[in-house]
Amino acid sequence: MAAYKAKQILLAKRPKGMPTLENFKFQEIDVPEPALNEVLIKTLYVSVDPYMRGRMSDRESYVPPFELHKVISGGVVGEVIESKSPDFNKGDFVVGQLGWQTYQLVQSEEIRKIDENLAPITAHLGVLGMPGLTAYFGMLDIGQPKNGETVVISGAAGAVGSTAGQIAKIKGARVIGIAGTKEKLSFLKNELGFDEVINYKEYDVYKQLKNACPNGIDVYFDNVGGEISDAVMKQINHQARIVICGQISLYNLEKADVGPRPQTQLVIKSALMKGYIVSDYASQFKDAAEELAQWMQAGQIKYRETIIEGFERIPEAFLGLFKGDNIGKYLVKI
Amino acid sequence: MAAYKAKQILLAKRPKGMPTLENFKFQEIDVPEPALNEVLIKTLYVSVDPYMRGRMSDRESYVPPFELHKVISGGVVGEVIESKSPDFNKGDFVVGQLGWQTYQLVQSEEIRKIDENLAPITAHLGVLGMPGLTAYFGMLDIGQPKNGETVVISGAAGAVGSTAGQIAKIKGARVIGIAGTKEKLSFLKNELGFDEVINYKEYDVYKQLKNACPNGIDVYFDNVGGEISDAVMKQINHQARIVICGQISLYNLEKADVGPRPQTQLVIKSALMKGYIVSDYASQFKDAAEELAQWMQAGQIKYRETIIEGFERIPEAFLGLFKGDNIGKYLVKI
Repeated sequence: MAAYKAKQILLAKRPKGMPTLENFKFQEIDVPEPALNEVLIKTLYVSVDPYMRGRMSDRESYVPPFELHKVISGGVVGEVIESKSPDFNKGDFVVGQLGWQTYQLVQSEEIRKIDENLAPITAHLGVLGMPGLTAYFGMLDIGQPKNGETVVISGAAGAVGSTAGQIAKIKGARVIGIAGTKEKLSFLKNELGFDEVINYKEYDVYKQLKNACPNGIDVYFDNVGGEISDAVMKQINHQARIVICGQISLYNLEKADVGPRPQTQLVIKSALMKGYIVSDYASQFKDAAEELAQWMQAGQIKYRETIIEGFERIPEAFLGLFKGDNIGKYLVKI
Repeated sequence: MAAYKAKQILLAKRPKGMPTLENFKFQEIDVPEPALNEVLIKTLYVSVDPYMRGRMSDRESYVPPFELHKVISGGVVGEVIESKSPDFNKGDFVVGQLGWQTYQLVQSEEIRKIDENLAPITAHLGVLGMPGLTAYFGMLDIGQPKNGETVVISGAAGAVGSTAGQIAKIKGARVIGIAGTKEKLSFLKNELGFDEVINYKEYDVYKQLKNACPNGIDVYFDNVGGEISDAVMKQINHQARIVICGQISLYNLEKADVGPRPQTQLVIKSALMKGYIVSDYASQFKDAAEELAQWMQAGQIKYRETIIEGFERIPEAFLGLFKGDNIGKYLVKI
């Protein structure tokens, strides 16, 4: 017996290079009544995140690839419509790694209840969710900014970069953000209090960094990779820490990412470069989320969301990530 | 009043690319009597080390460049000929960062007495000296090999690489050494007990590594850089540690070192890449040297030296480092 008709989005074919709308396919299915321990969710918000590009390819990565002709999944906030689980009630707001699907049945262990009094529910897809935790562990565990140090962030206006920069500010660092539009730079400088901002599309990034970082660079929080990173690497200090959070400029490259190898600079500067994925820190999520919530409530961490509306527009939002369409967390309201 | 005539080797001009004999100049000087707290040293052994290439250029690096038309300095073992220091007596063997010079006056704080009963005096330029300490801290602090893990070492037959591999063996790792001659491979496998050896000059390094490391690579101790490292990086495991100790294949490059950037692989594998210089660990030298000496005395760390004789041949030995002439520590006996 079908309770609801649901729309879902499948991976139609794997992209070569930049994905297009042709990589996605819509279909409608019937969602049956929940069985024991199952919960029926109505999707309210879908998060699109750069890391999902990796899952569209079938090369080995830190998360398994999406399966072809199966529903795509990512961060979702939803509302419980029916529950056969003792842990959830109708009307609860929940978050989880769920399908790009308007209604869906989930196992109770796949979702977590969220408190709508703590923060707007969408914050659990951003500053209090995966992007916030990604910023938290990358900056604090790897970057370890100290009072007075210089921290540079690429992709600074995204959900992760903007949080990472504010965490570095909390630790007393001087923070320089790199982004690609005037609106983003204004957000970083005027709303978030970044010390300096750099538009990588204008003028030479190396020279802009040289001006913005007269004492060199102690921490580089990298969401972007490529030539922006090359320019940063030339200016790192002794014992610098380079946090490799993402490499969005490379996700759609069809050939190898070739450029100056950073190893010589790492040895000359006794510097550290470390990649990570937020799930490496799963055992510490609870404490981190609490600290992020405290900072948010104290006004020390602000956030912005770019929200477009309509289930059909999820692929468009996802593709927009690679064009830099978003400031802060990019969400689709269903 | 001149006590001794001394020969010395000066930096005649800075090399572009591979150094040649023309970069060095010999001259003879008079060495005066020692003043208070000074010691007159007769040089017995001079160490030539790859890192010295960096000091011949005037680009910024972790150690200041050699000065043009000044005496070149490096690791030296000598004998005290005259002492005006209460800390040293005639006949003492000492080690220090001293000039390429047959006789020289030094301040007492520039040298350290060595115990010829503990080990042959030359060991203080190798396994018990800078190269041994470099291996020790790189492998133990950055590499952190665990029992059963796979460790790959490039430049494995040099003074640092051969020690690093044996330290990884002590920690229970499976150790694969990369070198460029049959004699070196035989030394690594038959004398030092490396589990597998790879000749980078023969056959494809990537495929040889694939065969030698069926479980992937957990620690890469890199002395070489360039394409050998590219082949290793493709095969690292989750949470791998890459120790950037040196990049000898690149020291004489006249252009930028361009190749696949490793950042994407670091983020996919949550891997760490860290450069260092042994002086980062100066506060821990004493304990480390004691542990190295214990391992040496227990037969757990063996070493080999390549020694040529004659002060005039120091430049030749230095240049030989870049041709792979040496197995183990390369020394010149004066």
